Formats: sequence, structure tokens, C-alpha cells
Amino acid sequence: MNPAALGGGLDRRPQRLAALREALGRADLDGLLVSSLPNVRYLTGFTGSNALLLVTPLELVLFTDFRYAAQVEDEVGGHAVVQIEPTSLWTGLWARLPAATGVERIGFESAHLLHRDFSRLLEQGARWQWRPVVDCVEQLRECKDEGEVACIERAVAIAETALVRTLEQLRPGMTELAVAGLLEHQLRDAGSEGFPFETIVASGPRSALPHARASERVLGLGDFVLIDFGAVYAGYCADITRTVVLGPASERQREIHDIVREANERASGAIRAEMQGMAADALAREYIDARGYGEAFGHSLGHGIGLEVHEGPRLSRSAEAPLAAGMVVTVEPGIYLPGWGGVRIEDDVLITADGARVLTRLDRQLTELS
Amino acid sequence: MNPAALGGGLDRRPQRLAALREALGRADLDGLLVSSLPNVRYLTGFTGSNALLLVTPLELVLFTDFRYAAQVEDEVGGHAVVQIEPTSLWTGLWARLPAATGVERIGFESAHLLHRDFSRLLEQGARWQWRPVVDCVEQLRECKDEGEVACIERAVAIAETALVRTLEQLRPGMTELAVAGLLEHQLRDAGSEGFPFETIVASGPRSALPHARASERVLGLGDFVLIDFGAVYAGYCADITRTVVLGPASERQREIHDIVREANERASGAIRAEMQGMAADALAREYIDARGYGEAFGHSLGHGIGLEVHEGPRLSRSAEAPLAAGMVVTVEPGIYLPGWGGVRIEDDVLITADGARVLTRLDRQLTELS
Repeated sequence: MNPAALGGGLDRRPQRLAALREALGRADLDGLLVSSLPNVRYLTGFTGSNALLLVTPLELVLFTDFRYAAQVEDEVGGHAVVQIEPTSLWTGLWARLPAATGVERIGFESAHLLHRDFSRLLEQGARWQWRPVVDCVEQLRECKDEGEVACIERAVAIAETALVRTLEQLRPGMTELAVAGLLEHQLRDAGSEGFPFETIVASGPRSALPHARASERVLGLGDFVLIDFGAVYAGYCADITRTVVLGPASERQREIHDIVREANERASGAIRAEMQGMAADALAREYIDARGYGEAFGHSLGHGIGLEVHEGPRLSRSAEAPLAAGMVVTVEPGIYLPGWGGVRIEDDVLITADGARVLTRLDRQLTELS
Repeated sequence: MNPAALGGGLDRRPQRLAALREALGRADLDGLLVSSLPNVRYLTGFTGSNALLLVTPLELVLFTDFRYAAQVEDEVGGHAVVQIEPTSLWTGLWARLPAATGVERIGFESAHLLHRDFSRLLEQGARWQWRPVVDCVEQLRECKDEGEVACIERAVAIAETALVRTLEQLRPGMTELAVAGLLEHQLRDAGSEGFPFETIVASGPRSALPHARASERVLGLGDFVLIDFGAVYAGYCADITRTVVLGPASERQREIHDIVREANERASGAIRAEMQGMAADALAREYIDARGYGEAFGHSLGHGIGLEVHEGPRLSRSAEAPLAAGMVVTVEPGIYLPGWGGVRIEDDVLITADGARVLTRLDRQLTELS
């Protein structure tokens, strides 16, 4: 058994499964076919890259392939029935399913099943009634337990350590790619299991591109350097952005950075349970709007983080769902001025019963690297 | 315009599109909705992470979102009609499609469209006839042009440089994760755009796990260290494995390594156009079988590489399709002995009109690190 695989939440697997079965009951389903790997991990602890999970009222069956035979024992133990398939996982499913008596209506994950595999349900699985479901397991994942929060905190700490060490080495003349390489090495050294998304290092005018990759651009004195990156600990992600200046900041750089920082602080400080996602988004957006840069903040305020670096809830202009205690979200306002540059400041925030706790400890003040 | 985005094959976009339109004609389709991002990149040069591409006999329309407004101009230029969508790409598609006169039967990529999006075709797209297609663009991608081969060669060279520099620093007492960190840093320094898959560093008995991740395991004297990793240049991937010994090798380590090396050499040397994928697989498998380790070679011989690190063709026991000049494939035999350790030696090989050319230049002899 491998507690780390579950983020300290090993004992929660039975509760998670019970909650899922309750949700299936309410949806009038006799079972669920789980094809999303993060959902499989959440329910069983299995971290391999090839799996199907069948949930019925009486059984939990995990199908994977021979490559994971040793690993799956270690991670899942007796918590699920494990079937190792020599060729296709689907072969195993069609062999197993007929034995599940009373199972007729089965949900499948519409957002995680390719049309190709959906066709299998209609063909080899024609004797069952298949019902598309959306966000069934994901909704359970939105509120984190203590073990999960601890893993995210650890991922945040790893990310922060790596960023601080990287900034110490930042110099004019380096390329963005070299900075990304430095940061990734520091992330590994600090204990990150991987990189939840491609590291963004965007300098000078490129910092105005909200999703720039690192490029061969050479960092120059006076440039903004926007760094958006993540870390992973026990499967749980951190997602952080800081924008620094190489050398002394200009008046204008300081002004824009101040607005974004204030927007972040207002949102991080006032976000709380019961609030709608759109209301959280408005905390930052209204301030940026009022300062005249509303048009330059072209994305939403944030998103949940956990086993995936983008998950529910959403903090956006159209997000009606209310937030709840235990959710961990990013707060990442930005201002992007094409041709000139941009600033984004992103923190990870835990929503609690009586407010919010910012998990990121890095200073939000503008850093001028000497 | 950005030739690098297309791997030096910028001028090939019109030919690729013409070949695709021909294939659509043969399949009696009036158009194709492309949702696979590597396929979008191959046809247009666009490298962003959110896109839909509509191919009709007269038009090529690329839908993406505002984040990529600047980038898409740069990469795609006038080669496709670009539509920037403020919310969903699908909104753009449904607004555009009615203007495509004569377009009735449209293919969609069954292996790259989620059920959720397939439902959109049946609902908002009910007035068209949607037909699942498989490997339509992927088949065009299997044979590489000169520019693509040059990019893969460059990726291979980057990977080799990084591995050599990493091996120089390998010492007993380091963890597998530390080795992965070193290697990734060297990959970045050598010019890799990223990591096409999670770096595998598996030492000692863990080298018997064909898909081990790097772990906290500490490298000891006498351990096998299996390193399977990739590099990316202009979007094109290299995929290489070497297995070394920390210190002097044992008799048994040498024996197993010799068999795998000989299997690799036999396959790399004799693979050629017109041969079926299964015949290529047999080149290595029959030798390993004859040496008594057939059961310990539990995966297929190799796969194509290109814009994806796993693509067609397959070199496996069941692969009937014939190989062709221009394909670039991995040749990666292995022997895995649970509890003891394993060896895999993986090269990247270009199939030519008159044989094959091994792109990997690294020695295949067993390296004993001192």
C-alpha cells in the first residue's frame, strides 16, 4: 500500500466510494464506468496510465495491463478487484460485466470517453443501457480532505523553493528556455514528481501573451519576466505565477503590477464559501475594470487544483455554482498589453468554513532582480 | 511565419492538404473536422493547445481562442482562414458551417473526439451527416519528408548530448528522481522544447518494470540503470533508451545486455520498406526467443515517432501493415526479469528506399560507469 499515492487520504477511499454510490443511486444508475485516470486514482489509488474502473453497488473492478501488474498490487491492495489484461482492457470488461447481476443502467464519463470507445459500448455492450454522465466523480473531488490539502501545501512549498532558487540565478542574456530548464531542475531537486503543465517563461513584450511557452528569446535588462509553473506532490498540483523585473522597474511596470497585486489581494482576501464562482471572479475584475484595464484581463480569475491542475470549481464571469469549504482554487488576475508586456500574479487559496487561507507564501510585491 | 513550427516542411502544407482532400474524396466525404492537435499542427503549422480545423474541398478554417490570436497569425499566416472565438470553438463552427455549400457528409476523428463533443455533432450539427474516421490524417503523417526527418535527427542529437552529459554525473547514492532532474536540465540546455513523456529512470530490480517512473530509490553500486526519455525539436520527438551499469557489470548483466543488443542490431539492420510490422517485430523477437527469454520480452518491438512520440506504424506481433520508406520508428527490444532487473536498448530508425538508417549514434555496448 502506498499512502503517498492517495495524498495521505488512504483511509478515505471507502468514503469516496460510498459517496459515489450514493450519487449513482440518486441518478438512478446501477453502475459507472470510469475512464478518467485522475478519477480512477481518486477512487482506488492507482497511478498507472492505462485503466478502466467499473463501479457497481457490490463491486469495484479495476482493469489495467501487464505493465502495471506489480504496481497495481502495491497501490490498490485489496481495495478493488484487479484484472490484468494482456491485450485490451475492454476485453476484460466484456468478460466481467455479465456476472454483475442486476446491473442494467450504467453511466459512462462523457467528457472522458472517446467516440471510438463509445462505439464499443454500443456494439459489444449492446445488452446494457449506457448513460452519459458529466462531472460525477469530479464533483466529489472538488472539496479536498485534510490529507489532500496537505499534499497541495507540500506541492506549493516545493514550487516556491524552486522559484526562489531560480530567481537567484536569473540574469540578462539568458534565454527563456534556459530559465525554464533551471526552474525544472530546481523543481525536481525540491521534490516535485513532475511538471503538471508546460512551464511558461515569457519575457519583455512576450509577457503579454497569456499562454506563451518558453522561447529562445534572450532576457534583457528592464524586461518583465512572467513565470507560470507548477509542482506535483503525491499526485497533487500547485500552480503559481509571479512576474518580476530584471533590474529596476519603470514607473509603468510598477503601476500595472500594483493593480494586479491589489486585484489578487482583494480576491484572495474576500473569497469564501457560499459565494458564487462569478462573484469571486468579480472581486478582482471590478477593481481592474475600475482602474481602466478591464479589457486587458482577458481570462477568468481561477480554477480548482488537485489531482489535476485544472479542475472544478471555475471562478469566471459565468460560473454560477457556489464555492464550498475545502475547495482549493487559483486566484490569478492579469493585465496584458500587447506589444508592451503583461503581469499575472497567481496564488493557490484554500476556502475554509470561515474565509480563505492563502497557501502560497511568496511575497506578491514586485521583485526587481539586481 | 514560423518554419520551425513545421519542421522545415513549411512548403509541404499545400501538398499535405491536397493529399488529405484526395483521401476524403476516396472516402466519399465532403469534409473533415480535425480535433487532434498534432493533426492540426501537421496541416496548418498551428501549435496552440485549443483548436478545431474544418477541411472542405474549398476551404480550410482554423478555430482557436483569443489567447492564441497573435501566435496563430505568426504560425499559420494566410494558409488557413483563422477564426478567433471568444468562448467556445464550437460556436464558431456552427456559425461557419452553413456557408460551406455542398458540404453534407463530414468525417470526424473517432479516436480524438470525446463523447461530449460527439453529442454536439448530433445536436447542433444535426443537419449534416457525420461519419467516424480513424487514422485519416495519421496515415499521411507516417511517412516523413526531409524536413521532418531533419527535425527528428536534431531531436535525437539533443537527446544524445543530454544523456552523455548526464551519465558523466551519475554516482551511487543519487536517487532516480535526481537523475531524472539532471537529465531534464541537460535536455533543456541542449535545446529540447520539452519532454514528450515522463522520463523513466529505473534502477536495480526496478529496471524490470517496463514503465517504471523515476522514484526515490537510491542508486547502488552494481545496479542496472535503465533510462528511457525523449527530446523535442520543432515539435518532432526522439525516443531513446539505454541501460547502463553503475560500476563493473556482473556476468549475468553482461549476458542479458548482450542478447538485447544483438536483438536490437538484428532488427535495426534488417528492417526495411515493404516488410510487415510483424515481420520487423520478429527480427528481434525470434532471436530473444531462441536465447530462451521470449517470455521476458513482454512488449512490442517499436512504434513510429514524429509529432507524437507514439504514432503509426506499429512494429508488433499483430501488425500486418507494410512499412514504407520515410517512416521513422523506434526499435526497442527488452528483457525483464522480475526481482532481478531488466535491459532495454532503444534506437530511432529511418526506413529508406534501400534499407534503414539508424538515427541514434550512441554506442549500444554496455556502459560500465566508473
